[in-house]
Amino acid sequence: MNSSDEDRRHREKMKKWKELQDKEVANKKISKGVLAVHTGAGKGKSTAAFGVALRMLGHGKKVVVVQFIKGAWLTGEREALKRFDDLVEWHSMGEGFTWDTQDKQRDIAACERGWSVAQEALKKEDVALVILDELNIALRYDYLSLDLVLSDLKSRPVMQHVIVTGRNAKAELIEAADMVTEMTPVKHHFDAGVKAQAGFEF
Amino acid sequence: MNSSDEDRRHREKMKKWKELQDKEVANKKISKGVLAVHTGAGKGKSTAAFGVALRMLGHGKKVVVVQFIKGAWLTGEREALKRFDDLVEWHSMGEGFTWDTQDKQRDIAACERGWSVAQEALKKEDVALVILDELNIALRYDYLSLDLVLSDLKSRPVMQHVIVTGRNAKAELIEAADMVTEMTPVKHHFDAGVKAQAGFEF
Repeated sequence: MNSSDEDRRHREKMKKWKELQDKEVANKKISKGVLAVHTGAGKGKSTAAFGVALRMLGHGKKVVVVQFIKGAWLTGEREALKRFDDLVEWHSMGEGFTWDTQDKQRDIAACERGWSVAQEALKKEDVALVILDELNIALRYDYLSLDLVLSDLKSRPVMQHVIVTGRNAKAELIEAADMVTEMTPVKHHFDAGVKAQAGFEF
Repeated sequence: MNSSDEDRRHREKMKKWKELQDKEVANKKISKGVLAVHTGAGKGKSTAAFGVALRMLGHGKKVVVVQFIKGAWLTGEREALKRFDDLVEWHSMGEGFTWDTQDKQRDIAACERGWSVAQEALKKEDVALVILDELNIALRYDYLSLDLVLSDLKSRPVMQHVIVTGRNAKAELIEAADMVTEMTPVKHHFDAGVKAQAGFEF
């Protein structure tokens, strides 16, 4: 097969793909706020959520972040988002990983304060995206009522997007979600003795 | 078991976790630039990369983005990163998905231009993070030489982080990478007829 044949075949294949793609896009007519869950043991759950935040901010939309557990680990994101203080509200409820506090009642109180703040955001039409960072951890340890959380999520403004992050998402939340992505670790540099580094990990 | 017993048990468990965690951190002594690959058919590959970019920017570090394929899909990120024009360089090489161009030679030329730009960034000590967005697609279609790409990645500054995104990462790239995360779609709202929305998808 000579090069121009190959080019023609490529062109035809891509044309078919494009038709399929256009048809798929045409079939999607619903606009609505998406409830997304980022779960799994791999990296990138919170990171991908903040990537979506960045995108929203690029469209001039408002974002609220409620951090449930890991108080100390989003320093870079938090600092960077200060350039968007016209559009971003940031609430930190956790005091670090739960194994740092060793005090279950204090953790529960922090999660409950966090949920009150989340409830406010989940009522505001002008908030385009609510990030509930590590909410899955709070739910896993039953620090918050799953029923309450699901009901508040369900009654939020119809166009509002929500991203819930954290390992071990509850089955009921996965059921309620529009989009669920599992981040699966295939290979990790921590296993090779590389330490967490400013900018890359926090 | 009464509530204070339960609290004590929780405290002990968390204490053990913390000791394990501290030990793990202490064993990690290497600082080096990480070569990360975000692959898989799920959402969040590019998005997580831009989350890392946001984190780097929060630490005042320089970021270079080279977009190989999907010219039209990162509008939000691109707009948002204009607030960091002191720290971010953005290069778009693709003209949209390949099935939009239907011209293989033009796609190859765009990828080669992209790689020249990437090579410049991969030589600069003061660039903390290079995002090679959808490079995996360019490699998959053999629009770029895998050997050349691997060799340039290998000879980059020792502290420079690189994130390569796109489905179907080549085995040789996965082998060379320090960190590989596969984004696996568990559930997607597109399947329920929800269309791509500004801010959430682009």
